[in-house]
Amino acid sequence: MPERIITISREFGSGGRTIGKRAAEKLGIPCYDKELIEQIAEQSGYAADYVKEETESLNGGLFSALFADRSMGLTNQDKLWTIQCRIITELAEKGSCIFIGRCADYILEERENCLNVFIHASVEKRMARIVKQYGEREDTPEHRVKEKDKQRMEYYRYYTGRKWGDVYNYQICLDSGELGIEKCADLICQLY
Amino acid sequence: MPERIITISREFGSGGRTIGKRAAEKLGIPCYDKELIEQIAEQSGYAADYVKEETESLNGGLFSALFADRSMGLTNQDKLWTIQCRIITELAEKGSCIFIGRCADYILEERENCLNVFIHASVEKRMARIVKQYGEREDTPEHRVKEKDKQRMEYYRYYTGRKWGDVYNYQICLDSGELGIEKCADLICQLY
Repeated sequence: MPERIITISREFGSGGRTIGKRAAEKLGIPCYDKELIEQIAEQSGYAADYVKEETESLNGGLFSALFADRSMGLTNQDKLWTIQCRIITELAEKGSCIFIGRCADYILEERENCLNVFIHASVEKRMARIVKQYGEREDTPEHRVKEKDKQRMEYYRYYTGRKWGDVYNYQICLDSGELGIEKCADLICQLY
Repeated sequence: MPERIITISREFGSGGRTIGKRAAEKLGIPCYDKELIEQIAEQSGYAADYVKEETESLNGGLFSALFADRSMGLTNQDKLWTIQCRIITELAEKGSCIFIGRCADYILEERENCLNVFIHASVEKRMARIVKQYGEREDTPEHRVKEKDKQRMEYYRYYTGRKWGDVYNYQICLDSGELGIEKCADLICQLY
């Protein structure tokens, strides 16, 4: 029986990670989230903090990534991308599971039995959630939310060529702010 | 108990209409589709065929609509838009129901208990479906599908100011080509 994979792409503060974990618990399958960062760190030899930063946004933005000096070979970020692709592909071969973010929907696009989900919510609901989950920072919640989304969008665009959050990339898109975290997790389990 | 409304926006050939009708059957509520055209025709005094054409695309496209001569008052199309808004609003007041298309998601955006759904599918699956449902035409299936979507997108854009098919307009977006018509109808019923 081929493995069934779920990939969850999500806006910052939409609860996508929580939804993924709840669905994984209900289905009795692994959910790969921060564990991926640790595995990439292990395989690459870089520190986990560095890996997290390099695999969640483009240093200096899209322009900088496009025109980075590759005369000596791939940048660190490119190398980490390659390792990330390999790890996700290998984990998908091992058994049914859920991936949170990491462009897994794109990396696994050739696979059958892969359900790609996009979780979103209004800016207001996400602002409230990130303050509740992560506390206050120097930046305003609104700025944090928009900045993080922009980083994800640029990273995704750069490495996949696709538009992050575009309805056509996913079999199902859910507004977690309106539907609720539990309901989203239930729907995902049903489609599994 | 306030009425619960479902609006279904859909790509041409994605089976959105069928999904809406199936969901309405399962829920035991009305599904307003072509009936809306007839009601608009009745209230406006125009023929149903004319109404259908004027409420599904902009004559001459977006440019023409933007620069139409309104020195003598609203165009026919504007008048029909106004009647369409009124009819949809009144029907939503009468009781729980499903609306197929007609920018109902926008018209009813202030309502609570309104579930907005977007149905989409790959161009290939939609091409196959429209030939099966509607038969061959002079135009290629690919052209028909793309042309119809373009019309919907422009009409929606013009009257709502929003981007048709944008994930942020809907609580749930479903790829009917991947998930199947019946599954989509079931999911909608669950969220009702």
